[in-house]
Amino acid sequence: MSKKSSKNSSLVRLIRPQVRKLAAYHVDETPIRIKLDAMENPFSLPEPVQREIATAVRNISINLYPDPSAKELKKAIASIWEMRPQQMILGNGSDELIQSIIVAFGGPVLVPVPTFAMYEITSRALAQDVVVAPLDRSFDLDAELMVRKAKESKARVIFLACPNNPTGNHFSDAAVRKILEKTDAAIVIDEAYYSFSGKTWLPLLKKYPNMIILRTLSKIGFAGLRVGVLAASREIVDELNKIRLPYNINSLSQVAAVTALKHRNVLERQISLLISEREKLYNAFLKLQGVTAYPTETNFILIRTASDASTIHQKLKQAGILIKNLNKPGPLRNCLRITIGTPEENRELLKRLKNILAAEGRS
Amino acid sequence: MSKKSSKNSSLVRLIRPQVRKLAAYHVDETPIRIKLDAMENPFSLPEPVQREIATAVRNISINLYPDPSAKELKKAIASIWEMRPQQMILGNGSDELIQSIIVAFGGPVLVPVPTFAMYEITSRALAQDVVVAPLDRSFDLDAELMVRKAKESKARVIFLACPNNPTGNHFSDAAVRKILEKTDAAIVIDEAYYSFSGKTWLPLLKKYPNMIILRTLSKIGFAGLRVGVLAASREIVDELNKIRLPYNINSLSQVAAVTALKHRNVLERQISLLISEREKLYNAFLKLQGVTAYPTETNFILIRTASDASTIHQKLKQAGILIKNLNKPGPLRNCLRITIGTPEENRELLKRLKNILAAEGRS
Repeated sequence: MSKKSSKNSSLVRLIRPQVRKLAAYHVDETPIRIKLDAMENPFSLPEPVQREIATAVRNISINLYPDPSAKELKKAIASIWEMRPQQMILGNGSDELIQSIIVAFGGPVLVPVPTFAMYEITSRALAQDVVVAPLDRSFDLDAELMVRKAKESKARVIFLACPNNPTGNHFSDAAVRKILEKTDAAIVIDEAYYSFSGKTWLPLLKKYPNMIILRTLSKIGFAGLRVGVLAASREIVDELNKIRLPYNINSLSQVAAVTALKHRNVLERQISLLISEREKLYNAFLKLQGVTAYPTETNFILIRTASDASTIHQKLKQAGILIKNLNKPGPLRNCLRITIGTPEENRELLKRLKNILAAEGRS
Repeated sequence: MSKKSSKNSSLVRLIRPQVRKLAAYHVDETPIRIKLDAMENPFSLPEPVQREIATAVRNISINLYPDPSAKELKKAIASIWEMRPQQMILGNGSDELIQSIIVAFGGPVLVPVPTFAMYEITSRALAQDVVVAPLDRSFDLDAELMVRKAKESKARVIFLACPNNPTGNHFSDAAVRKILEKTDAAIVIDEAYYSFSGKTWLPLLKKYPNMIILRTLSKIGFAGLRVGVLAASREIVDELNKIRLPYNINSLSQVAAVTALKHRNVLERQISLLISEREKLYNAFLKLQGVTAYPTETNFILIRTASDASTIHQKLKQAGILIKNLNKPGPLRNCLRITIGTPEENRELLKRLKNILAAEGRS
């Protein structure tokens, strides 16, 4: 027995130290009534569309490998987002595309903080150095600092989430442009929340061939399908395709997404409703004592509470509402991230939050 | 214009040299009548099972993220293969698991040749060194050579496909055991063809905690779903989970596989039929002049032709039958790999092959 365990531990010792030091990306799996933690679109598809997807799935030969180049799905996405299929790569979620980019270019990887956690987690998992540059007090990029850190570290990749997660704002154009023009790295503009911001750098891909655009189907209603989208110059796409696992998008997600994307009007209606709900909720937060709400161009709102955010998070959870607790020392102290839900969910969140804050005020 | 292209090319120069040197994994996308190139199970599922899958899919909320730990699917696979869910990781195909292993341990990666191409492609894409050790003349492992090369190179990972692709044979137990006992690397036993060989190293996981077992749902009828399976010690699984992308198995594949795996009898019938077809075809090849057929414990047969294999491959393709052409100088000179199809497909393959060989004999 002791011999076995020593052999076993010795295998774990073979794991690269950078990996051993990692903590896995934490997903809160608490069963919950109202889930406002993960930027999912809260609306399911209308019954006829669900049926259409099921019929399409029924006609697939799951015994055969998927289309390795996902041609139909690329065409469908290209048409709604005005991309070119030849300049696209699809991933098993953007997560996989982030991984491919880091594998292709290597580090150092430069990221502003706070930003989407997977850039740093994935870089470290791939044993690449990560350099960080704090955002300014209004959560905008400090472009000069970014450029300086890029040069000093010889950064090969820079991730800019536009709009940024978890802060919700779009970085100022001038700052992004400066980074595009004054650094030698691959600049990844992650437009995961594009549908909620309406802003995009995509038309500037020709002007800035050092730019790689990421999008995803997750936030607009298809998180379960795992389809991330990358657009870049043809040359970069050719290189990244060498790294892409040949059958990375399964057959069911391919056909389900193609079918769902035919119903663009359904998606657009859901997104408009979410945007108007976001505005309502944001305005309500502005009136709440003990809460600072940050401007947002996404489907979530970052708030900072005057009292302990972790307590509030916990109380909401006890009431069956899960939001994301970001509270830790630093720029996100007492911060909470709230995904926009259905009108009923948002109403209940607001009511519960008011009650919690009122009870705290009394005690 | 010239300025733009120079900026563009400079970004490509930032791509790691190991990646630039790579060629992408080639998938033959010729539209074809009889597809015997990719080890797919040629049988689709019975209509009622297809319907059941479609119904299950219809009830999924594709707007929500998938279960990150794929609990139900792990349970289903664990029960048919006598694994423990806590000692399993699922991947977006084995391809993703191979990638995770290499990321976790790093190189050098030692592989026998010839073997499954993705071990080497993925290692190189991840900028890890690859050390190769030729198989012996009967395509068995040269255990001494493997052990020596492992020591000399300080290999951190060794991939052993059992049975091996593209040769079809199971390496001798003694050779595998020697490598397990005399090297310090993580030994990955890839049992992709387990259902066709009936042999497994899985019960020895306790004895050899330096072993990692891979399986896949692809060869038994679910290539379209992309579900690879890894079994290892709890410690190794914990480390590899840090690298796994949190939502790597999409919701539709999870529910479709859980539903399909309930019909174990259907799968077992298909597999028995494929095994008996394999035996028939193998015996027929043995009688064919100008063809050497190699013993196989998989759902494919490797043959070597006396005349130019590429010509034969091309003629079969013209007749609407796609097999895999492995012909290049070295141990696979004039070799072709033929996946077992339906009885009708195998009969037609055999007939066409006979005709092609006869015509060559006459000319």
